[in-house]
Amino acid sequence: MTEAVQQLLDRQEIVDVIHAYCRNVDLVDAAEVAALFTEDCVVDYGPGLGEPTRGAAELEARLARGLPRFAATSHHVSNIEVTFLGDGTSANAITYLYAWHRHPDGRPDAVLWAQYHDRFVRTVDGWKIRERVLKVAGQENFDVEWYPIGRRGTGDS
Amino acid sequence: MTEAVQQLLDRQEIVDVIHAYCRNVDLVDAAEVAALFTEDCVVDYGPGLGEPTRGAAELEARLARGLPRFAATSHHVSNIEVTFLGDGTSANAITYLYAWHRHPDGRPDAVLWAQYHDRFVRTVDGWKIRERVLKVAGQENFDVEWYPIGRRGTGDS
Amino acid sequence: MTEAVQQLLDRQEIVDVIHAYCRNVDLVDAAEVAALFTEDCVVDYGPGLGEPTRGAAELEARLARGLPRFAATSHHVSNIEVTFLGDGTSANAITYLYAWHRHPDGRPDAVLWAQYHDRFVRTVDGWKIRERVLKVAGQENFDVEWYPIGRRGTGDS
Repeated sequence: MTEAVQQLLDRQEIVDVIHAYCRNVDLVDAAEVAALFTEDCVVDYGPGLGEPTRGAAELEARLARGLPRFAATSHHVSNIEVTFLGDGTSANAITYLYAWHRHPDGRPDAVLWAQYHDRFVRTVDGWKIRERVLKVAGQENFDVEWYPIGRRGTGDS
Repeated sequence: MTEAVQQLLDRQEIVDVIHAYCRNVDLVDAAEVAALFTEDCVVDYGPGLGEPTRGAAELEARLARGLPRFAATSHHVSNIEVTFLGDGTSANAITYLYAWHRHPDGRPDAVLWAQYHDRFVRTVDGWKIRERVLKVAGQENFDVEWYPIGRRGTGDS
Repeated sequence: MTEAVQQLLDRQEIVDVIHAYCRNVDLVDAAEVAALFTEDCVVDYGPGLGEPTRGAAELEARLARGLPRFAATSHHVSNIEVTFLGDGTSANAITYLYAWHRHPDGRPDAVLWAQYHDRFVRTVDGWKIRERVLKVAGQENFDVEWYPIGRRGTGDS
C-alpha cells in the first residue's frame, strides 16, 4: 500500500475520533470522551475556563461535572484539515465547530463558532488526541473569555 | 485491494447518498430522494409526525406533500460515522444534521439540531438506505414531538 | 493503483482546497485565498454583489477590500459532492455552506445557508478552483440579491 493510501486510512481514523468526541459529549458520556485522549493529554478550552486540563482522568472528571450543566448540546464539526508530520505517528488537525447549547433555566441558547486545534498521536490503541486547544471565531450568549482564531487586522492574531 | 481500502470506497458511496438526500430534499425533488432508499425501506421521522413511512413509493408521496409546505430549507450534515457490519453488504451510519427551515407565512425560522441513524445495504444499484430514524438533540420553533438522542441524566435515554 | 483509489486521493485534495478557502477567508488572508484559484478563474458571488470577479489577482483585491468589513466570520462547509469529469483533470463540486458574519457596528449577525458550485481543475500546483458560483437557499440580515439554489415550485429554478 502506498503512503498516500495509508494516510487516507489514518485520516479516516482521526476523523472518526473527532466525531466520537462530539457524539459522546452530546450524550454526556465523560468516560467515552476521555478514552479518545492520551493519558498525558493537555486540553485547553480557553482562558475563561480556567487552567488547561492535564490528563485523561482529569478531563473525564471535568466533563462529568461540566456537561450536565446544559440541558442539551449539539456539536457539529466540519472543515477537518489533517496534516501528517512525516514521522507516521503524529498529525495536526484543525476542525471547525458549530456548537449549540441549551440552558436548563430558559436563558437564550448559547452558540459557538469555533475551531479545535489538535495534535493527534498514533498509539497501540489507535489514534488519540494528545493536545486540544479551542479557538473561537464568535459566540452568542456565552459570558466567557476564549482564545481568538487569529483574524488579521483585529489585533487578536 | 485490501478490505480497508474497499471500505474507504464504500464509505464514500454511502456519504454521497447522505449528501444527495439533503440536496434533493432542499430542491423539493421527492422522486430523487426516494430513489436513495430501498423499496422496502422504513423511515421514522419521529412520533410527532405519524407512523413510520414504509416503502420508497410511500416516502416519495409523503415528501411530495410535505416538502412544499416550507418556503425554503437547508439540510447541513456532518459528523458522519459509518460502521460496517462485517458481511460486506450492510452498514450503520450516524449523521449529524443542522436543518434550517423557512416558513412561507413569516413565522420565525424553524431549526433542528439532530441525528440520522441509518441502516445502509448494498444493492445491485449501489448503497441505499433501508432504515432511517431521526433523533433530535434540540429544536427551535417546531411544535412536534421527536425522538431524543439518548442524553444521559435527562431521562430520555 | 486503481482509478477508484486515485479518485479518493484527488477528492481529498479538492476537499482540502475547499477547507483552506474557508479558513483563510475567516483569517482575512486574501492572498492565501486567491492562491487556491487558477489565474483565469471566474468567481460569481451573486447578482447583488456586482459583476463576477475575473482572475485570481482581482479576486485577491476584492477580498482584501471586502473581508475586513466584517468584525468576524465563520464559514462552515459540509455535504461536499465531487463529480469527476472523466478526463482526469477536472471535476465539479457542490458544497453546502453555513456562513456566520458579525458586523462591527452591533447590527444583528448575518447568516447564509448556501452552496458553492465549483469547477476544479488539476494544475501543476495541484487542484485549483477555476469557477465558483454561490447559490443561496436562505439568508438572515443580508440585504443582497443572491442566486437561488433552484428549488422546485418556487419559480426560482
